[in-house]
Amino acid sequence: TFREEFLSYHPYDQAVFYEKAEPEMRELLYQYLSPKEMALIFAAIDLDDEEYEEFFKELNSIYAADMLSNMSTDDAVDVLNNLNKEQVATYLSIMDKESARQIKDLLHYEEYTAGSIMTTEFVAIPQNSTVRSAMNILRNAASKAETIYYVFVIDSERKLTGIVTLRDLIIADEDTLISSIMSERVVSVSVGEDQEEVARMIKDYDFLAMPVVDFQNHLLGIITVDDIIDVLDEEASDDYSKLAGVTDMDNFDKGPFTAAKKRLPWLILLTFLGMLTANLMGLFEATLDQVALLAVFIPLIAGMAGNSGTQALAVAVRGIATGDIEEESKVKLLLREAGTGLITGVVCGVVVIGLVYFWKGELLIGILVGTAVMGSIFVATLAGSFIPLLIHRMKIDPAVASGPFITTLNDIISILIYLGLATTFLSQL
Amino acid sequence: TFREEFLSYHPYDQAVFYEKAEPEMRELLYQYLSPKEMALIFAAIDLDDEEYEEFFKELNSIYAADMLSNMSTDDAVDVLNNLNKEQVATYLSIMDKESARQIKDLLHYEEYTAGSIMTTEFVAIPQNSTVRSAMNILRNAASKAETIYYVFVIDSERKLTGIVTLRDLIIADEDTLISSIMSERVVSVSVGEDQEEVARMIKDYDFLAMPVVDFQNHLLGIITVDDIIDVLDEEASDDYSKLAGVTDMDNFDKGPFTAAKKRLPWLILLTFLGMLTANLMGLFEATLDQVALLAVFIPLIAGMAGNSGTQALAVAVRGIATGDIEEESKVKLLLREAGTGLITGVVCGVVVIGLVYFWKGELLIGILVGTAVMGSIFVATLAGSFIPLLIHRMKIDPAVASGPFITTLNDIISILIYLGLATTFLSQL
Ligand SMILES: [Mg+2]
Ligand SMILES: [Mg+2]
Ligand SMILES: [Mg+2]
Ligand SMILES: [Mg+2]
Ligand SMILES: [Mg+2]
Ligand SMILES: [Mg+2]
Ligand SMILES: [Mg+2]
Ligand SMILES: [Mg+2]
Ligand SMILES: [Mg+2]
Ligand SMILES: [Mg+2]
Ligand SMILES: [Mg+2]
Ligand SMILES: [Mg+2]
Ligand SMILES: [Mg+2]
Repeated sequence: TFREEFLSYHPYDQAVFYEKAEPEMRELLYQYLSPKEMALIFAAIDLDDEEYEEFFKELNSIYAADMLSNMSTDDAVDVLNNLNKEQVATYLSIMDKESARQIKDLLHYEEYTAGSIMTTEFVAIPQNSTVRSAMNILRNAASKAETIYYVFVIDSERKLTGIVTLRDLIIADEDTLISSIMSERVVSVSVGEDQEEVARMIKDYDFLAMPVVDFQNHLLGIITVDDIIDVLDEEASDDYSKLAGVTDMDNFDKGPFTAAKKRLPWLILLTFLGMLTANLMGLFEATLDQVALLAVFIPLIAGMAGNSGTQALAVAVRGIATGDIEEESKVKLLLREAGTGLITGVVCGVVVIGLVYFWKGELLIGILVGTAVMGSIFVATLAGSFIPLLIHRMKIDPAVASGPFITTLNDIISILIYLGLATTFLSQL
Repeated sequence: TFREEFLSYHPYDQAVFYEKAEPEMRELLYQYLSPKEMALIFAAIDLDDEEYEEFFKELNSIYAADMLSNMSTDDAVDVLNNLNKEQVATYLSIMDKESARQIKDLLHYEEYTAGSIMTTEFVAIPQNSTVRSAMNILRNAASKAETIYYVFVIDSERKLTGIVTLRDLIIADEDTLISSIMSERVVSVSVGEDQEEVARMIKDYDFLAMPVVDFQNHLLGIITVDDIIDVLDEEASDDYSKLAGVTDMDNFDKGPFTAAKKRLPWLILLTFLGMLTANLMGLFEATLDQVALLAVFIPLIAGMAGNSGTQALAVAVRGIATGDIEEESKVKLLLREAGTGLITGVVCGVVVIGLVYFWKGELLIGILVGTAVMGSIFVATLAGSFIPLLIHRMKIDPAVASGPFITTLNDIISILIYLGLATTFLSQL
């Protein structure tokens, strides 16, 4: 039958089918699939905000509430975060009380924190259990728990005291006490920790899950590796978008208006910054009027400055994101970037002097343009690393100092350097 | 004791300590730790190419070979790929034959393929086993296997026929036949598959490991989620670097010369492209000479073109990387980008006309600059999406069409449009 055939696919494939289905087909799926089966689809799905609201309007409220209570708490929270307030209130009031309580708890955590991505379906055992009783608890929990490969050991106050893996359990003798085989050096994160930091830890330690605790070390939830992969992917996409000056990556099913809406904020901001540049250049109109040849090198100089600034920016933003740049090494980084800017500036400046001299036979203009390239690259490199560090210090995501912003800033700096030099030495040209 | 205290830390923390240690401290560690203990450190470590060679020179060859044979095959391969040919040959000849054979097999696979990141420490069981015998096999394999949470079921020819999770095993009755509880719809990848595609599948399906097979479906190895996280991280870092025009992200322990070496290739290429731009602009020197005001808008126009091109580029590169843009949707994407370029171009063009008119009172110049902005944004957006699609079609990583390249190309295009228009309508200005 259709139902059996459909259910034999992996939930992700079911979700892809559902996402692309016409409304009539979705209607059919709601009839054929139980709320529990539909829950697996909604846990694997990735829709746009508006689509969630739209799709949930198609669902009977009891069916929807039942489906949400059958999802892992973290996935239910993800879905609810995309619905409007009345929808959330309705479903939470219909749903069984225990699920509603767990979901409400998680809805309170701030976005991008460990709390916002953790789930409550973990297996915890008392530290005085034996391996046998632990295995029994595991067997009972197997169908509901997010992972049964890590078992968390707690004391009578639900404080996290150890961790045992299922690998340890199956090789141990059944009468062994958990406390004698558990690892006591548990790596955990606090509930308010940045999700990116959690991701970094799971990546470094090669964990399948990470326990989340409050300030008294009470075990509150776990974060599993599959969700961490999504976090890493989102954070990378986010940094990448910002470097390119797009507010958000495109959904390729959407038309040009949606795409334009994501790009215009940056472009319009840049129009204003560009007019500022034009106004500053206007101050040098007399100089440009006297030596029209000067103007032809402006794109070269601004381009070099823009690019070396973007390079420095990317290195700094990435270094902060990966945790390689720590508070104490910021001054060291700036000194190093000053050195880097000096080296790249001198090399490129000399190349420019050579090119202008050999192609155009203009030594003086060559020296002027080359010197402007040197100075611009040096300043742009410093600005490109200093600005994200400063923003990070102000506790703002350094990625907001995006590529187009730094590029335009460096346009201005480099033009001021170039035309400033040109005006000063005008009599010699 | 120091040894006990040191070993109580997680291997990753041991690796961080080792990486930062002075040569004398490393010498001490080689004395205190067995090759097997040292193997865990080298599996968790992430050194520069030269450092691997250097550190291995400190090691006694027998100790080093013993350590390598104690590592997971994939990790040993990673390390060996960083050593010189003589070192590799020496270690492989000293090492036990079985480890050497497995490592040699994996060394043959091309970089960035599934084969190059898979490991051979998996648990495979015959399909006619019972749960009891499977559990016994697992217990014996537990200390060596990369994961025991997925058990791969093979037929008499070692062809992959199913998969069982340890979760399924512990809840099943001991006499159950594996064939009756295994999942037959196994998702596997072929050994030559791109690692990024494998990563995408593990991310979508939320797997802990993925089996790797040859063309006859023989099970060759597995790829585990922890290594996939590293792949995703590297690929993201790589795309990000290329967008910024850096050949490779910095190691922050290194000085300005190393950093400059990674940035100069792009900057020097840009110098030449910039000179080309300057030469093209030189063709319009007469026009610039007549209306010096024209020059002040060049950074604005080139900046808008460069940025809208980078936006389109980022969207296309990311869409290809995530698999959202498939072969059949490329034409659709280009049409959409044409629409997007038209909308953003018209909006920004009108803003520019308004700004130039109200700030400078110059309507004609405003219309000229605004029209140039429109045309430049339109062409730049198309170029920004067309070029990565074209490169991808040529089976090259679209990320090589990096930000600085597109920006400079769009500098040229936009200047030609602007000064071409200006020259045509010069008599009216
Ligand atoms: Mg969440
Ligand atoms: Mg963050
Ligand atoms: Mg790792
Ligand atoms: Mg989850
Ligand atoms: Mg998930
Ligand atoms: Mg971030
Ligand atoms: Mg590896
Ligand atoms: Mg490898
Ligand atoms: Mg690739
Ligand atoms: Mg996933
Ligand atoms: Mg591995
Ligand atoms: Mg590893
Ligand atoms: Mg890639």
